[in-house]
Amino acid sequence: MFVRVDHIGVAVEDLDAALPLYRDAYAMPLVHREVVEAQGVEAVLLDVGENHVELLAPLGPDTPVGRFLAARGPGMHHVAYQVTDIERTLDALREQGMRLIDETPRIGIRGSRVAFVHPKSTGGVLTEIVQPAEGH
Amino acid sequence: MFVRVDHIGVAVEDLDAALPLYRDAYAMPLVHREVVEAQGVEAVLLDVGENHVELLAPLGPDTPVGRFLAARGPGMHHVAYQVTDIERTLDALREQGMRLIDETPRIGIRGSRVAFVHPKSTGGVLTEIVQPAEGH
Repeated sequence: MFVRVDHIGVAVEDLDAALPLYRDAYAMPLVHREVVEAQGVEAVLLDVGENHVELLAPLGPDTPVGRFLAARGPGMHHVAYQVTDIERTLDALREQGMRLIDETPRIGIRGSRVAFVHPKSTGGVLTEIVQPAEGH
Repeated sequence: MFVRVDHIGVAVEDLDAALPLYRDAYAMPLVHREVVEAQGVEAVLLDVGENHVELLAPLGPDTPVGRFLAARGPGMHHVAYQVTDIERTLDALREQGMRLIDETPRIGIRGSRVAFVHPKSTGGVLTEIVQPAEGH
C-alpha cells in the first residue's frame, strides 16, 4: 500500500531559526519552500535520501499548527506515507473502517495530492497519505 | 550525512493491540520483534519500502516510553536517521555543538548500533542515529 515514508512533518515556531539545524548541522539539501494557505503554514522540504523532512511554521496562532505549538510545543507533528494511487488507498482505508479527515484528496505542498487520516484511527499518530506530483 | 529515514518510532500501550492497524490495515510486513531490555521496551519493526515503523511498548511504567505514554499518550515518539558510519556522524554532530544523549553508540534493535540526540538540540524532536547491522 505504502511505497515509503514520504516525510516527517515537524512543527517549528520559526522556519529561518530552524533551518540551520537541518540544512547545516544535518546537511540536508533544502529543496522547496512554500506558503500553503489552505493548511495555514509556511513549509520547507529537505531531502533525506528519497525521504524528506517537512518543517511547518504556522501563519498565525489560530491555525492547526499554531494550536499544536501552543498545546505541545515544537516537535514531531505528523508522518506522511507515499502512495502511487491516492484514491485507491483512501478506498482501502475506508474499507478497513478508518476515519479520514479528508474524504477526497486535496492539493498539498509542491503540487502533491494529500489526505489526512484522523489520529483517533491511528493510535494518536496524525497520518498523511501523499501522492507526489509527476517528477517528484 | 543521513542515508534515509531509518524509522519512525511510535509509542503504544499494547503491541498486539496496535499490530492490526499497521500489519493489516496498512499492509506493512512485520519483520522483527524483540525485547530491548536496555531501553525498557518490547518493539516490532514493520517495513515501509526501505523505511520502517518501530512500535514501542513499555516494559513498565517507570521506563522512558512508559513515562512518555503517561505524559503525552500514544503517538509519535522519535525519528531515526540511517547512517553508514555512526562514530563519524556523532563526531560531526558534536562539532556542530549538538547535545548527545549517547556519547558512544550502543546496541539497538536487530543488532543495530544507535545513539540518541537530545531533543533540546533538535527543536523538541527526539532523534536517533542508526547504523544497521550488516544485512539489514
